[in-house]
Amino acid sequence: MRVLGIDPGLTRCGLGVVEGQVGRPLHLIDVNVVRTSADLPIAERLVTIERGIDAWLDEYAPDAVAVERVFARSDSSTIIGTAQASGIALVAAARRGVPVTSYTPSEVKAAVSGSGRAGKAQVGAMVTRILRLDAPPKPADAADALALAITHVWRGSAQARIDAALLAAGRNK
Amino acid sequence: MRVLGIDPGLTRCGLGVVEGQVGRPLHLIDVNVVRTSADLPIAERLVTIERGIDAWLDEYAPDAVAVERVFARSDSSTIIGTAQASGIALVAAARRGVPVTSYTPSEVKAAVSGSGRAGKAQVGAMVTRILRLDAPPKPADAADALALAITHVWRGSAQARIDAALLAAGRNK
Repeated sequence: MRVLGIDPGLTRCGLGVVEGQVGRPLHLIDVNVVRTSADLPIAERLVTIERGIDAWLDEYAPDAVAVERVFARSDSSTIIGTAQASGIALVAAARRGVPVTSYTPSEVKAAVSGSGRAGKAQVGAMVTRILRLDAPPKPADAADALALAITHVWRGSAQARIDAALLAAGRNK
Repeated sequence: MRVLGIDPGLTRCGLGVVEGQVGRPLHLIDVNVVRTSADLPIAERLVTIERGIDAWLDEYAPDAVAVERVFARSDSSTIIGTAQASGIALVAAARRGVPVTSYTPSEVKAAVSGSGRAGKAQVGAMVTRILRLDAPPKPADAADALALAITHVWRGSAQARIDAALLAAGRNK
C-alpha cells in the first residue's frame, strides 16, 4: 500500500510518501515540505498548503492518508494555524474518497521507535533506518511526515488483517 | 456590497448573507446553519462544511467573506474543530479570489452593539433591529454569522473610503 503522511503546519507542512507492507522493507517514494511565508495572509497560506497537498494526491495517488492529530494542549502560539492546516489536509483527502486517519504524536513515536516519548532525533534516526536512507530527512517536519506514513502502513495493515479475520470468522459461522 | 459572514464550527457552522452599504438600510439575503453529526469522522464533517460554504459562494456570489477569528484561549474542548472549520472557510473564499477578512468576537460585538462585551442576546437583538427582522435568528451561530457580515459591510466600507481618500490625496500631490 502507498501512504501519504502529512505533518500539518502553517509555516512548514511536511509531506512524505511511503510504499510497502508489514514484514517487507518499506520504500521512500518522495518527501518534501510545503513552506509558506508568515508575511502572507492566513487564507493565502492555507491555499498554498491545499495546492501542495492536492498536487501530491494527484501525483502519487496514495491508498491512504495519515495526518497528525492536533491537540488543544499543544503550543498555543501555533495551535490555530496547525489545526487549520490539519483541517485542509483532512478535507483534501476525504473530498477524493481517500481514507484518512489521524495519529497522535505518541502513537507515531511508539510505532517507529517503540517509545511514545521518543525525541525528534530518535524518530529521525528510526525513519532513516526503516527506509534505508543515507541521512535523516530534514527538516523534522519531513521526517515526521514519513513517520506518519510508516505508522499507517504498519497499523493500517494490522487493522486490515483483523478486519479480514473478522470477516472470515463471520463467513465460517 | 454583498457579504457572506461565516461563524465557523464543527457541529454548527453559521452562514449569513447581508447586502448593503454604510448609511443605508442593510438587507438580509439568507441565513442558515450547516450542521454535522458528532458520530461522523472529522474529515467527513469538514467536507460537509466545505460543501455548504461552496454552495453559498456559488449561489450568492458575495463580494467579500467575513470569518470569525479563532483564538487559542477559546473553549479548549471545541477549539481544534472550530479552527479546522475556520481554515476550510478561509480557503473556500481565497481559492475563488473572494477577499476574506477575519474579525474577533469583540470587534463584531462592538460593531453591531457598541460594546465589545455584549452578550449573545444583545448581539441577536441588534442583528434583528439592523436587518429589520421579526425575531432574532436562531441558533446563535446564525445571528453571529449575520453580525460578521454586518461588521464587514460597515468596516469594509469605511476602509474602502479611507483607501480612496489616500489614493486621491496621493493623486493631488
